[in-house]
Amino acid sequence: MATTQKCNEWQFSGSEAAKEAAAATLGAYSSALYALCDDSNGKPIFPPSNKIVETSHSAERAVVKVVLTGTGNAYAPSVGLPIARSAVAEYLNRDLPKKLTPGDVYMTVGCKRAIDLAVDILAKPKANVLLPRPGFPWDIVRSIYKNLEVRYYDFIPEKNFEIDFESVKKVTDKNTFAIFIINPHNPNGNTYSEAHLKQLAELAKELSIMVVSDEVFRWTVFGNNPFVPMGKFSSIVPVVTLGSLSKGWTVPGWRTGWVALHDLDGVFKNTKIVQAANDFMQINAKPPTIIQAAMSDILERTPNYFFVERGNYLKHKVEIGYSKVKHIPGLTCYMKPEACTFLWTKLDISCFADIEDDEDFCRKLAVEENLVVLPGAKMFKSLCIIYNTSFSCFNNTTCVLNWLGIAFSQKNWLRHSIDMDTQTLEEAFERLKSFCERYFTESGAPRKNVNGVN
Amino acid sequence: MATTQKCNEWQFSGSEAAKEAAAATLGAYSSALYALCDDSNGKPIFPPSNKIVETSHSAERAVVKVVLTGTGNAYAPSVGLPIARSAVAEYLNRDLPKKLTPGDVYMTVGCKRAIDLAVDILAKPKANVLLPRPGFPWDIVRSIYKNLEVRYYDFIPEKNFEIDFESVKKVTDKNTFAIFIINPHNPNGNTYSEAHLKQLAELAKELSIMVVSDEVFRWTVFGNNPFVPMGKFSSIVPVVTLGSLSKGWTVPGWRTGWVALHDLDGVFKNTKIVQAANDFMQINAKPPTIIQAAMSDILERTPNYFFVERGNYLKHKVEIGYSKVKHIPGLTCYMKPEACTFLWTKLDISCFADIEDDEDFCRKLAVEENLVVLPGAKMFKSLCIIYNTSFSCFNNTTCVLNWLGIAFSQKNWLRHSIDMDTQTLEEAFERLKSFCERYFTESGAPRKNVNGVN
Repeated sequence: MATTQKCNEWQFSGSEAAKEAAAATLGAYSSALYALCDDSNGKPIFPPSNKIVETSHSAERAVVKVVLTGTGNAYAPSVGLPIARSAVAEYLNRDLPKKLTPGDVYMTVGCKRAIDLAVDILAKPKANVLLPRPGFPWDIVRSIYKNLEVRYYDFIPEKNFEIDFESVKKVTDKNTFAIFIINPHNPNGNTYSEAHLKQLAELAKELSIMVVSDEVFRWTVFGNNPFVPMGKFSSIVPVVTLGSLSKGWTVPGWRTGWVALHDLDGVFKNTKIVQAANDFMQINAKPPTIIQAAMSDILERTPNYFFVERGNYLKHKVEIGYSKVKHIPGLTCYMKPEACTFLWTKLDISCFADIEDDEDFCRKLAVEENLVVLPGAKMFKSLCIIYNTSFSCFNNTTCVLNWLGIAFSQKNWLRHSIDMDTQTLEEAFERLKSFCERYFTESGAPRKNVNGVN
Repeated sequence: MATTQKCNEWQFSGSEAAKEAAAATLGAYSSALYALCDDSNGKPIFPPSNKIVETSHSAERAVVKVVLTGTGNAYAPSVGLPIARSAVAEYLNRDLPKKLTPGDVYMTVGCKRAIDLAVDILAKPKANVLLPRPGFPWDIVRSIYKNLEVRYYDFIPEKNFEIDFESVKKVTDKNTFAIFIINPHNPNGNTYSEAHLKQLAELAKELSIMVVSDEVFRWTVFGNNPFVPMGKFSSIVPVVTLGSLSKGWTVPGWRTGWVALHDLDGVFKNTKIVQAANDFMQINAKPPTIIQAAMSDILERTPNYFFVERGNYLKHKVEIGYSKVKHIPGLTCYMKPEACTFLWTKLDISCFADIEDDEDFCRKLAVEENLVVLPGAKMFKSLCIIYNTSFSCFNNTTCVLNWLGIAFSQKNWLRHSIDMDTQTLEEAFERLKSFCERYFTESGAPRKNVNGVN
């Protein structure tokens, strides 16, 4: 024990337990790209980071009412305020043959914390979960942090990004606990049909695994395929539904989401999933009570036209983006999105000179065009166990580098935001086109001089 | 891989990683006691769980303004909205000779998540931290969850619960990273003098450890000792300050707190504490933006009389409780609290017949009087490493059961809430008195029959 004065020999040091997971977040990735932009030349940075979205006035009114009447001024139970749990159960029950009770619902700090809860309750030694490739990276970020083994399943771009059931079967073994789906899918932009979801439920039953369904984008649907909740098939397979207010009510930052456990013959209780959910909620962060207490008004009183208008707005933007991409060399958009707020395109890297991969593409695009587009995959060297049917060389570093992808876990694809005003959107795609034409080459020859930029 | 239909052989099961930590939370403990109460006989349950507190109108107005003007509708950076970080830095700087910058402040989901961050950045293999005995249990809950070794230091009840510096020295070794203090202290109810805090800073410097100071009760101070922030001594020792809105503005459930890193000659940067804080914030929950965006108005515009009135209210309640306890056999209150919202009394268990310990006392009190008082310590059998100078018998189960305490980590003490209207408070202490008189015995003889209850 130290007894004499020491000036600079402090004993403590910071933990590195979150380092890998932090580096894998989309936020870290997107910040790095924004940091490469420079608008000192007068060229504004796109997408504008401070864009004003039209928030649901029903949500605003509901929260104001709670604040002014003081009905949200009390610590909530760890699992959520009873009125909020009831409101979510009732709302989800509109589409469900097998009804949820308020006790099946857990209130979380946004959908990210709903994902955390789903991962945490499943993170056991040797267990693995199936994640979509591509997919929203938070699932993998949390899995990295919790040392939960991740295995990927694929989609069929040519079949409107349906789930490739063969790829699901290939990577499932006796330690597989769950398949995570995103519906509507970010970044693919499709919505699964009722028939496809039913097939998935039957496959999951056959494999004896649960389905975890992230439905945060269910309110931004504008295609021909109506949204069908996975919970509809909870009489076939146990389902966990994740959701939140942010995307549907355009209230980013309000941090109020939920997890619903659709049990099947008490299996969630018997396998201690319910106990684990209660335990984790006891030590987890809670969403603000002033929003929890407003949930009933928010869910019940928001007029349907709010979602319809938002859908029309996004559909219009998608049309613009989709038609622009058709004329950009080296990019392929397999499906015009019918949901969410993005275009998802395949980058044919062989068409470009001096561009190494999607990450390099995005970095150069940020530097040269002040335009932020997110790459499909960042390659990541990690000790985290990631299993892939294509590789078995666990001790080969080069191989390791090749099979742990983050961002959206799919190399050489791009996610383009389309949720901005028309003029900005058109200019963003003009910049993208100009950039691609500059680097485009059919033979790998040095890039062309376009618009005076070399 | 399963290929045939199986009905009840699902592969998954819930994680038990949060089980011990969840059981150690005050919430779990308090719920268990409330569940023992039964008001079907017409005797109301105290303290009332739905008590209405007068929330700061300044805080309410500030949030309503943000919601109605839409200035909180955007995802915040993981470390917090810049305007919120600035507002907290400016507010804390009022009392600090060495100023914080906005970059030193991290916005958290209430003070519990501030504690989590402090524990998480220090949780490394072999590291240990010093926690107060008694103390608010969240620090130990998080430490259990993160496998961070906990060592306890003590207080001197006879000296107004000053920190026993000798006990601090005894348990510190080369792997000690930090001493956690609570100021004003929950549950002791005292506020540390400037001289005492300076001594602590010098001791911590001598020991080469940082000081983590939980100052969530700094606004509910009503004694002669004014509150002095630990950050005032950050030119002697590196300090981490934890705080939140809930207690000061009486906005329970709003979940907005902060961590401030008072660095000293760059030591937090050099020891990667800053990096760890940034990494954990990247993967942690965020407080709602509609409150973060209101922080500047909340911190700057709340009139001082709001806190003065609240202090006067609590002081009055403390006087009532303190004078009542004097006439209750078997309980000793060493100090009339000068802060927080509790009385902290020592239970002389030898004075009571048929009562085993503080836990048994609280259970019987709940059942017989519909009154919830929290016990000082719950004994807890755990594999978590807890070090105590008094014991070395790590393999003896009985011993294990004796040295891991939770709740407030101090056996045979009681925490009584005094934050309720006068009539309720007086009746609560009457019930307590009646209960104690019933069980009181000078010789350990069977308990007396008081008020017709046996």
